[in-house]
Amino acid sequence: KKLSQKVIKDTKDKITLIEANLDDQTGEGLGYVMQKLMNAGAYDVFFTPIQMKKDRPATKITVLGNISDQLLLIKIILKETSTIGVRYQHWHRVVMQRRFEKVTTDYGEIKIKIATYGNVEKKIPEYIDCAQIAHRKNISFINVYQSAIIAAQHLN
Amino acid sequence: KKLSQKVIKDTKDKITLIEANLDDQTGEGLGYVMQKLMNAGAYDVFFTPIQMKKDRPATKITVLGNISDQLLLIKIILKETSTIGVRYQHWHRVVMQRRFEKVTTDYGEIKIKIATYGNVEKKIPEYIDCAQIAHRKNISFINVYQSAIIAAQHLN
Amino acid sequence: KKLSQKVIKDTKDKITLIEANLDDQTGEGLGYVMQKLMNAGAYDVFFTPIQMKKDRPATKITVLGNISDQLLLIKIILKETSTIGVRYQHWHRVVMQRRFEKVTTDYGEIKIKIATYGNVEKKIPEYIDCAQIAHRKNISFINVYQSAIIAAQHLN
Amino acid sequence: KKLSQKVIKDTKDKITLIEANLDDQTGEGLGYVMQKLMNAGAYDVFFTPIQMKKDRPATKITVLGNISDQLLLIKIILKETSTIGVRYQHWHRVVMQRRFEKVTTDYGEIKIKIATYGNVEKKIPEYIDCAQIAHRKNISFINVYQSAIIAAQHLN
Amino acid sequence: KKLSQKVIKDTKDKITLIEANLDDQTGEGLGYVMQKLMNAGAYDVFFTPIQMKKDRPATKITVLGNISDQLLLIKIILKETSTIGVRYQHWHRVVMQRRFEKVTTDYGEIKIKIATYGNVEKKIPEYIDCAQIAHRKNISFINVYQSAIIAAQHLN
Amino acid sequence: KKLSQKVIKDTKDKITLIEANLDDQTGEGLGYVMQKLMNAGAYDVFFTPIQMKKDRPATKITVLGNISDQLLLIKIILKETSTIGVRYQHWHRVVMQRRFEKVTTDYGEIKIKIATYGNVEKKIPEYIDCAQIAHRKNISFINVYQSAIIAAQHLN
Ligand code: NI
Ligand code: NI
Ligand code: NI
Ligand code: NI
Ligand code: NI
Ligand code: NI
Ligand code: NI
Ligand code: NI
Ligand code: NI
Ligand code: NI
Ligand code: NI
Ligand code: NI
Repeated sequence: KKLSQKVIKDTKDKITLIEANLDDQTGEGLGYVMQKLMNAGAYDVFFTPIQMKKDRPATKITVLGNISDQLLLIKIILKETSTIGVRYQHWHRVVMQRRFEKVTTDYGEIKIKIATYGNVEKKIPEYIDCAQIAHRKNISFINVYQSAIIAAQHLN
Repeated sequence: KKLSQKVIKDTKDKITLIEANLDDQTGEGLGYVMQKLMNAGAYDVFFTPIQMKKDRPATKITVLGNISDQLLLIKIILKETSTIGVRYQHWHRVVMQRRFEKVTTDYGEIKIKIATYGNVEKKIPEYIDCAQIAHRKNISFINVYQSAIIAAQHLN
Repeated sequence: KKLSQKVIKDTKDKITLIEANLDDQTGEGLGYVMQKLMNAGAYDVFFTPIQMKKDRPATKITVLGNISDQLLLIKIILKETSTIGVRYQHWHRVVMQRRFEKVTTDYGEIKIKIATYGNVEKKIPEYIDCAQIAHRKNISFINVYQSAIIAAQHLN
Repeated sequence: KKLSQKVIKDTKDKITLIEANLDDQTGEGLGYVMQKLMNAGAYDVFFTPIQMKKDRPATKITVLGNISDQLLLIKIILKETSTIGVRYQHWHRVVMQRRFEKVTTDYGEIKIKIATYGNVEKKIPEYIDCAQIAHRKNISFINVYQSAIIAAQHLN
Repeated sequence: KKLSQKVIKDTKDKITLIEANLDDQTGEGLGYVMQKLMNAGAYDVFFTPIQMKKDRPATKITVLGNISDQLLLIKIILKETSTIGVRYQHWHRVVMQRRFEKVTTDYGEIKIKIATYGNVEKKIPEYIDCAQIAHRKNISFINVYQSAIIAAQHLN
Repeated sequence: KKLSQKVIKDTKDKITLIEANLDDQTGEGLGYVMQKLMNAGAYDVFFTPIQMKKDRPATKITVLGNISDQLLLIKIILKETSTIGVRYQHWHRVVMQRRFEKVTTDYGEIKIKIATYGNVEKKIPEYIDCAQIAHRKNISFINVYQSAIIAAQHLN
């Protein structure tokens, strides 16, 4: 089960953030390694466009993960990218508590993530549910997403 | 009074740096939250374009602030953006000492920030003064800025 | 009245698209020129980060406008930026028809832009209305925006 | 069959290039529309990070396609994104001739694209073949890709 | 002699703009090709970070040049990059008239480019002169650049 | 001797990472400072495009270096850029062990960097050797790079 789909009750933790600069790797290979890292349990992986010396356009890869997975994630980066070194740090996090409800829209059932922190509350339709319905029924993703927001208005 | 317009005598401090990745928020909403955070006393707010999983273009928001404002700034991010978690760290800073002088140009008075650190000295025309004069007199911003540099040459 | 707030009935037109690469201008000056160009009637102005020769990070400015305003917009760019040349082209456009309705939410009245093209219809809450209400009532922009979508569901 | 996997003999054609600026759409929704456009036969779809007025980070979507698909692609953009208008132009292209060969590596068979134009020749291992082998055999993508280059050296 | 250092009297011309998307090339190789294209007479070469399908960070290369050099520049791109096709268009340009003067500063002689268009006039210190002086005398580039602006104030 | 060309036997160290946001500096000046910092012994320098308040496109400079060089590198940034403060942190690193071998290709001798970490091994042709051969013999950089990979296949 992915982190973003788990019920979360604590509101504080610590994570590892791992980075490497890549100027001798192709974009194709980077799409591949993002998938590898997500499959290995990384909380998140993202790319930032950077500009390195000698007129080189390059990509910074950033991986967020559980501290106990740090070595595993570093090894994947060293194996699957052209970098010969990675840097990392621990970061603190504040996270909202999360639970899930289902709502019924004209188009079908959609899961709603309800996130709370103090008196802040947010209701976020699950991307995958909206995307699957939109695809199957040939309506626009925006329409499905908005119908989920409408259906979720009386949830609490 | 904004940080960038204060007289500063110390040359070291520590700040908090708060980040969140946003792939389910619109650019319109992000322009709004930048303003909210600046109004709440953030030292600086900036956006970095990033690329997240599932072919999603996204935006990383970074907020720099006083450590005593950390919780306040985190709460604004949680309230005003779609993120359900933020990460943060403390960073060390080296800052130049700053004082202000006024110079008179052909176009009007302009405040000059004089920043020093050891034997490094920089004279920086205040943006807002240059912009207002340029706008009011319908001359180019560059011309006004350059006239301020010329007028400031004998300041010390 | 800005283009984005006009009632539009035609669905085709032609516009000018003007570009310049800037590696010897500051970000401060570029924020200033964006405002100048919008005030002069540009349909849109945007910046793209680019990487130029000799390890220079730079900014490409793009201005969209009415073909009859082309020379005016070019002159502003030449006057207000460091570039010594601009390039331009005409582009074709397909635009949706637009009209406006007001809806009443728990938080106040909000204008809705209704855009149609063939059987596609979109209802888009006006940014400025949402932002002003959110600011005045100290609720989050997202909440106001979502309440406008809920209130607009039965419009047509 | 995708364009990039077709045998190509001509070296000139004309394509349509369609663009829209998006500041009121989420990254999640944009990942969805990229897939939709590729499925509908677009030659290529890509995102460019841009910066719009009012401090809004935004995304420019660009779609390349066959001129006969222009209206179809425009309609998908209008239906699936928040934009209310798109701009387009025709571009000329010079393309290399392409044919395909298979090579046998220590890890398995890999298709090689051989592209020629005048006296320029390039041998490019197919991404999907390399990725599948790397994944199945748990070796790095780079290793497989390099083994394909080694195996292809005597092809012509 | 490079375009940016020539005396220019006309204020209109037409150029070619050539583009290719690169997701299977390294940043190292791209720094190399930029140099090749500049040496071959391109007016300008720049890179834009883009995001392609399958989670691939990529780079768009753009080359501006004389229309008579179009085929030469296209061939260099096909030879030196991994792309198997390029797209191009002609763009119109408005350029400022340019001439050069020398000024004497406390640090040495610096060439000033004087660009004019109608009643717009800009004085731009030559980068290379400022950089060489700054490097040789171990003063900051900004100081040298500002001293050139001060020395150029009475030029016309 | 540059870091990337040294034989490395340890696989862990700690470095300093220094950053500053620049919205009142030109791209020209930034290309200059990158060179200065590399000459002063920085491990790496890179630029990230960011978006600051008041519609300003800006550049974040990041410098990686030996902790004992921290103050020296900070002073160069303060002297050579428009910023009036920098922030810094220490990061941990995992680095691969490195040694060098020469291989003979059809085009000439090329140095190969062999990087190892546990059972991961990578062979990386030296950019500068490939670039010089490609330039001198007028063959494409990619061809030379691939010939180095082919020649290196039996190294260990
Ligand atoms: Ni390298
Ligand atoms: Ni801590
Ligand atoms: Ni999400
Ligand atoms: Ni510390
Ligand atoms: Ni220049
Ligand atoms: Ni036409
Ligand atoms: Ni809008
Ligand atoms: Ni490919
Ligand atoms: Ni044509
Ligand atoms: Ni024309
Ligand atoms: Ni400033
Ligand atoms: Ni530590």
